[in-house]
Amino acid sequence: MTRTDSAETTDEAAADLAAEAALLEIAEELGLSDLLDGAEPFTLEQAADLAAVPAPGAAAYLGALVSAGLVEQAAQGGPYTPVADLVDRRYRAGYLSWALNANRPYIDHAALFLRDPETAGGKYARDGRRVAVSSRWIGSRGFYPGVVEEITSGAPRRVVDLGAGAAGLLVRLLRELPDSTGVALDLSAAACDEARRAARQAGLADRLDVVHRSVESLADDPAPVRGADVVHAGFVLHDVVGRPEVLDGVLRACRESLAEGGRMVVTDAVPYAPDPRERAFSALFSYLHASSMEVDLPPEQVWHEAFRRAGFTEVSSSPQRMPGSRVFVAAG
Amino acid sequence: MTRTDSAETTDEAAADLAAEAALLEIAEELGLSDLLDGAEPFTLEQAADLAAVPAPGAAAYLGALVSAGLVEQAAQGGPYTPVADLVDRRYRAGYLSWALNANRPYIDHAALFLRDPETAGGKYARDGRRVAVSSRWIGSRGFYPGVVEEITSGAPRRVVDLGAGAAGLLVRLLRELPDSTGVALDLSAAACDEARRAARQAGLADRLDVVHRSVESLADDPAPVRGADVVHAGFVLHDVVGRPEVLDGVLRACRESLAEGGRMVVTDAVPYAPDPRERAFSALFSYLHASSMEVDLPPEQVWHEAFRRAGFTEVSSSPQRMPGSRVFVAAG
Repeated sequence: MTRTDSAETTDEAAADLAAEAALLEIAEELGLSDLLDGAEPFTLEQAADLAAVPAPGAAAYLGALVSAGLVEQAAQGGPYTPVADLVDRRYRAGYLSWALNANRPYIDHAALFLRDPETAGGKYARDGRRVAVSSRWIGSRGFYPGVVEEITSGAPRRVVDLGAGAAGLLVRLLRELPDSTGVALDLSAAACDEARRAARQAGLADRLDVVHRSVESLADDPAPVRGADVVHAGFVLHDVVGRPEVLDGVLRACRESLAEGGRMVVTDAVPYAPDPRERAFSALFSYLHASSMEVDLPPEQVWHEAFRRAGFTEVSSSPQRMPGSRVFVAAG
Repeated sequence: MTRTDSAETTDEAAADLAAEAALLEIAEELGLSDLLDGAEPFTLEQAADLAAVPAPGAAAYLGALVSAGLVEQAAQGGPYTPVADLVDRRYRAGYLSWALNANRPYIDHAALFLRDPETAGGKYARDGRRVAVSSRWIGSRGFYPGVVEEITSGAPRRVVDLGAGAAGLLVRLLRELPDSTGVALDLSAAACDEARRAARQAGLADRLDVVHRSVESLADDPAPVRGADVVHAGFVLHDVVGRPEVLDGVLRACRESLAEGGRMVVTDAVPYAPDPRERAFSALFSYLHASSMEVDLPPEQVWHEAFRRAGFTEVSSSPQRMPGSRVFVAAG
C-alpha cells in the first residue's frame, strides 16, 4: 500500500489512534482489559470492583470510553458493552504502545545510546511488562494468527515454544489440540511462574511442562525439544544470531531432536523491509534493535542459510501482518 | 468523517504513525528537529555535530529515517533532504506524543488519580517540556493557523498573549505585523526567560515585552492588557474556569482595557465533542483534564455566557482542526 490517503483522513486517524491507545493503556492500568476483550455487557459495579476505584471515578472513565466510541451504553445507568471491533482497535493501539511506551528509555536516551551504548544499556532498560503487553497487542493480529494456523495445520502431538514467556501461545495451541502436549521454555523465572499459573488456570497443567532454561543451553542439552513435532521460537533467536556458532548449535540440536516429519517454526523480523506497507515500522524496529539492544536483525536469506547449515532441506518464509515480520518454516 | 476506512488501511496507518512518531521523538531528543523542519538538504556531518554523536551512529539513525520515508538521500554518502510533507507528519505525530508521552504519569497512575486525585496530583506531574513540544506539534496544524489568521486579519497594532509560554505565537505574529508590538505574559519564570531569548533571537526585543505574571492577577491590575487591539489566550483560561468570579474578573478587565474596536481571541477545548471527527481525541483530552488536572472543561455555551457577562456584545466560536478545539472571538 502506498500513502494515498487524503491528508485529512490520515490526520483524523492520528488523533483517533492516539486517543484510543491512551484510553486502552489506562484500561490496562486499571485492570479492565479482560472486561473490554470479553465482548459481553458489564456493569459499573463490576468495573469499579475490578479497578478498585470509587464508582464515580469508574463512571467517569467508562463515560470517556463511551464518548470515544470504544464502549456502548444503550441507556444511562445501564450496562456497558465493548464495541465489536475492540480487539482490532487494541491491535492497532499495540503499535503505538510498543513504539512510544515500551521503548521509552531508548527514545529518551537516544543520544547516549549512540555515544556509549554499553553505559546506556546498563543504565536504561525497558520495562518488561510494557514490552510484553504491547507485543501481545500487536501479536494478536500481527503474527499469532499465522503462527497458530501454521502450527495446528500439521496436527502436532508435541509442541515446544522457545522463549515462551507466560505461555500464551501454548495455552491457545493446546486448547485447539486436545490430545497434544507442550513445553514452555524461558530464561526468565518470573515468566516461568506465570506460565505455570496460566497452565493451571487453563486446566492444562498435565499437558504443559515449563522449563526454566536459556535457548542457548539447548546446544549442549536438547532434552526439552526431544521428540517435538514442532519447535516454535518467536522473536527470540535473533538474540543469538550475533553468535553464529551458538545459533547453529541451537538449530542443529532442534533438527536432530525433532520427531519424524517434525518442523521448526520461527517468527522473527527482517531488517529494514523496503515495501511501502512495511518500511516505517520496520525501520523503527530495526533501528532500535541495532542501536539500543545490540541486535542486528539478519536478512531473510541469512535465516535460510542458517537453517540449511543445520541440515534442514525444506525452508520457506512468508510475511505476516506485522510490518517486517516473517514466519520461517524449516523441515526435512 | 465516519470510520469507513477499510481495516487494512487503518492498520497500516497505526504502524506507520507509531514509527514516525517514535523516530521524530528521537530526532527531538538528538536536537535534530530544526534540521528536519528546515526543508533543506543537510549533511551527515551537520547532523552528527548537532546531535553530538559519532558519525556512524548519526548515519545509522539517518539511514532509519531514509528507510522510513521521512528523509530522502539521492546517493549513498550524499546529503539528506527531509520529505516535503515532514511538517504534516510531525503534526500527526504530535497527537501520539501528547497522548502517550506527555500524559505518561496520568496513564501510569490512572487508578491512583481516581482513588485519591490530591495525592496523585502532588506526586505525579507531567514533564513541562514534553507537554510543550507535543502541544506545539499539534498546534502547528491543529490551531495556530486559524488563530494567526483570525488575529492578523484585523491588522492589530498591539497584541497581548496570556499564557504565552516561550512566545512562539507572538514571534510569528510580530513577523507578519512589522509595525505592531506585543506582550507575552506567563506564570512561569522559565517560560519568560525563553520568551525573552526568542524575542532577541528574532530581532524583536524592541517590540515584544515579557511580563512574568499570572492571568488571574489581571483582574486587579490590568496594566499588561491596556490598549491592546487583541488579547489572545490559548488553553490557559480553562484553568481559572472553575472559579467563575476569577474568570469574570479577568474577562472584564480585558474588555475594559482593550483599545477601541479591540477583541479577545480565546483558543480552548470544549468537553466531549460528539462529532465522529472529534469524539475519540476529545474524550481523552476531556477525561485527562477532569481526572488528573482538576479541570472540568466548560461547554461552548458556558464560554459564550461568560464573555457576555463581561460585557462583550459580539461573541462567536468556530471549530479548529484539533479535535475538540474552538476559537472564540469576543468584541463589542
